[in-house]
Amino acid sequence: MTHPQESLEQLKERYAAVQAKQLQLDMTRGKPGPEQLDLANAMLTLVDGDHYKDDAGTDCRNYGVVDGLPAAKRLFADFLECDAEEVIIGGNASLTLMHNYIARAMLHGVPGSPRPWCRESAVRFLCPVPGYDRHFNVCKEMGIEMIPVAMNDEGPDMDQVERLVAEDASIKGIWCVPKYANPNGVTYSDTVVDRLASMTTAAPDFRILWDNAYAHHHLYDQEDQLKNILQACKQCGNPNRVIMLGSTSKISFAGAGVSAMACSVENRSDVLGHVKMETIGNDKLNQLRHLRFFQNMAGIRAHMKRHAAILRPKFEGVRKVLTRELEGTGLATWTQPRGGYFICLDTAPGLAKRVVALAGAAGVKLTPAGATHPNGHDPDDKTIRIAPSMPSLPAILEATEVMALCVKLAAAEKNA
Amino acid sequence: MTHPQESLEQLKERYAAVQAKQLQLDMTRGKPGPEQLDLANAMLTLVDGDHYKDDAGTDCRNYGVVDGLPAAKRLFADFLECDAEEVIIGGNASLTLMHNYIARAMLHGVPGSPRPWCRESAVRFLCPVPGYDRHFNVCKEMGIEMIPVAMNDEGPDMDQVERLVAEDASIKGIWCVPKYANPNGVTYSDTVVDRLASMTTAAPDFRILWDNAYAHHHLYDQEDQLKNILQACKQCGNPNRVIMLGSTSKISFAGAGVSAMACSVENRSDVLGHVKMETIGNDKLNQLRHLRFFQNMAGIRAHMKRHAAILRPKFEGVRKVLTRELEGTGLATWTQPRGGYFICLDTAPGLAKRVVALAGAAGVKLTPAGATHPNGHDPDDKTIRIAPSMPSLPAILEATEVMALCVKLAAAEKNA
Repeated sequence: MTHPQESLEQLKERYAAVQAKQLQLDMTRGKPGPEQLDLANAMLTLVDGDHYKDDAGTDCRNYGVVDGLPAAKRLFADFLECDAEEVIIGGNASLTLMHNYIARAMLHGVPGSPRPWCRESAVRFLCPVPGYDRHFNVCKEMGIEMIPVAMNDEGPDMDQVERLVAEDASIKGIWCVPKYANPNGVTYSDTVVDRLASMTTAAPDFRILWDNAYAHHHLYDQEDQLKNILQACKQCGNPNRVIMLGSTSKISFAGAGVSAMACSVENRSDVLGHVKMETIGNDKLNQLRHLRFFQNMAGIRAHMKRHAAILRPKFEGVRKVLTRELEGTGLATWTQPRGGYFICLDTAPGLAKRVVALAGAAGVKLTPAGATHPNGHDPDDKTIRIAPSMPSLPAILEATEVMALCVKLAAAEKNA
Repeated sequence: MTHPQESLEQLKERYAAVQAKQLQLDMTRGKPGPEQLDLANAMLTLVDGDHYKDDAGTDCRNYGVVDGLPAAKRLFADFLECDAEEVIIGGNASLTLMHNYIARAMLHGVPGSPRPWCRESAVRFLCPVPGYDRHFNVCKEMGIEMIPVAMNDEGPDMDQVERLVAEDASIKGIWCVPKYANPNGVTYSDTVVDRLASMTTAAPDFRILWDNAYAHHHLYDQEDQLKNILQACKQCGNPNRVIMLGSTSKISFAGAGVSAMACSVENRSDVLGHVKMETIGNDKLNQLRHLRFFQNMAGIRAHMKRHAAILRPKFEGVRKVLTRELEGTGLATWTQPRGGYFICLDTAPGLAKRVVALAGAAGVKLTPAGATHPNGHDPDDKTIRIAPSMPSLPAILEATEVMALCVKLAAAEKNA
């Protein structure tokens, strides 16, 4: 299966030459690059000793406003396509909102729960694979059993999902990254959204954790469209089914953005009742910085085009190298996402772990193989998540070349 | 018991005159006043497009550094009097750190726990009274039963505490505000600290939640001294017993400060293992703002003297009015705190609720009577928490006069 003109010996030689370069390249995490972060630097000084009140006159330096500034709720209502009365503003991470939502469900239950989830004999979650490792970590942390379900070009395999949730009341939820999915770039089709909203679930308190992390993270002018699932759930008489999440982590600053959740008014009131016990309010000055900088969704959309201009060449660079090095070899396939933060490389079965190990030993850090699956177990050992955002373009090209070499070497080793 | 020269009718007349003024005064919460917040305004622009890296070169705009910037850990190690390796930096609220600590204990247990607390048939916490309502709310939220214990001039009644924790293994912890306590201003004596550190507890996983919210919040040059309880616990062979907490909420910005916890290395490692599932890291830009503004503990101490200069006249104003209006009447006593955020007014038994209601109806909002006790139940109905920080000095003087009038009126009503 190796490229005709390269023997195992030749590949080993090339690999040794790469090792000698002592590279230090990192494609592990979906972190924005510094030039992306620079785009929002002006935000940092928009709140100062003369500008610390919101448009309603609230002193954002002081305590209070537990659900977020009204203007921030309005902005995120546009962002998540819902009403401001359905929004709660969080801290700097939607991951925390999701974790806390599950933690509270364990301790208290959610509207519709017969009892707190920690009092159930078992709690299970559906995990479309490949998926996001931090979602899986939350399940593991909570002792929630993860059931992998396949992803196809339209989203999760809904035949499988519908069958499972209908028959097993211990299945309390599903993780979804519905747009430009982490890691395979898929945007859920309208049909998938409708089936998720309308399906019959054995659990009366089933929840869709709708992590719309890349809602506005397009790479091209022609944008993927995602159907509004909260609307769909309401229309199907299941308004409490979905918890939508988003943040500016990959819009403003990854470590200092603003997160938000949106859901039915009943869910929101339930969540807020608990949030009031946890905090007197999140950082309103940071909310105000974002409001002053972006103003509205048009501001965010314009800003995201600047991100796209930086990211597009990186994504296309990876694909160019993969095409040049691996097309026609039968050793790998890869995704062509139109947004988001990742390219998914599927090697021939049984190679991914070895490729990641070889790349690591040659100074190119990749996300551990298996990280895209619950408990780190990719049964086919084939999926590698490539994160091309953080390094510079030359570094990305070099790292991708090394990765392609490692794919060939791992295959040749196997066939030797 | 009313002042000799004022009859019920006269008091009623005076009260009606106050009502006619349609005052709108608020002494409910321990919020800093705007002029205190102004003291830190310069911090807001210290992080900008040229200054976003810490002294180790970390880009604070991006993801990561889950336990906080090394320099922030060093600053809070000095702040909480421990080693940097014992510190975890949190978000903008130590309340969240406390809530999450208890929530994790419920879900997972803590080092030494035979099982998660939610698997125990009962979990109880000792609550020195009067105390902080938000502590009580966390217990209520978690279904933890609260056992009030008396406070005296040196801290909690340790005879009572020692007896209870020795005999009841379901008592898993105690809430402490050990310095300039909320609300009665007491600083725990060395003896109390030593007894808390050394006492025998039936629960193998007993925890002291050491909410040192007012550690550096002195009103006078002569500062109360608090013995280091983490050191004391280590010396007694109980290193895991205490979780220390602090924040800059009442130092920099109440809604946009930096919080921190400190504890034994074993506790810290346990906490951090969970925190990593909840967040990729708290807001490092805000940590950096604080580091650039305060530099070190000398900077914080100098800053706190500026706060004291603003707060001292307000505290003394309240006391002056109370002395003038109520001294010698036998109707009330009040504390003379040397730091912190509150004055505690104890009325004659059975009057507090009525006083708060009367004051409210005259446009002076006070913290609900009972808020200083678990489940809002003050058995003597006598304790009123006065928060003199937020309003202007004239407003405070006026509000205190109204309050004193309400004390007299409530007493006269009762004797009528």
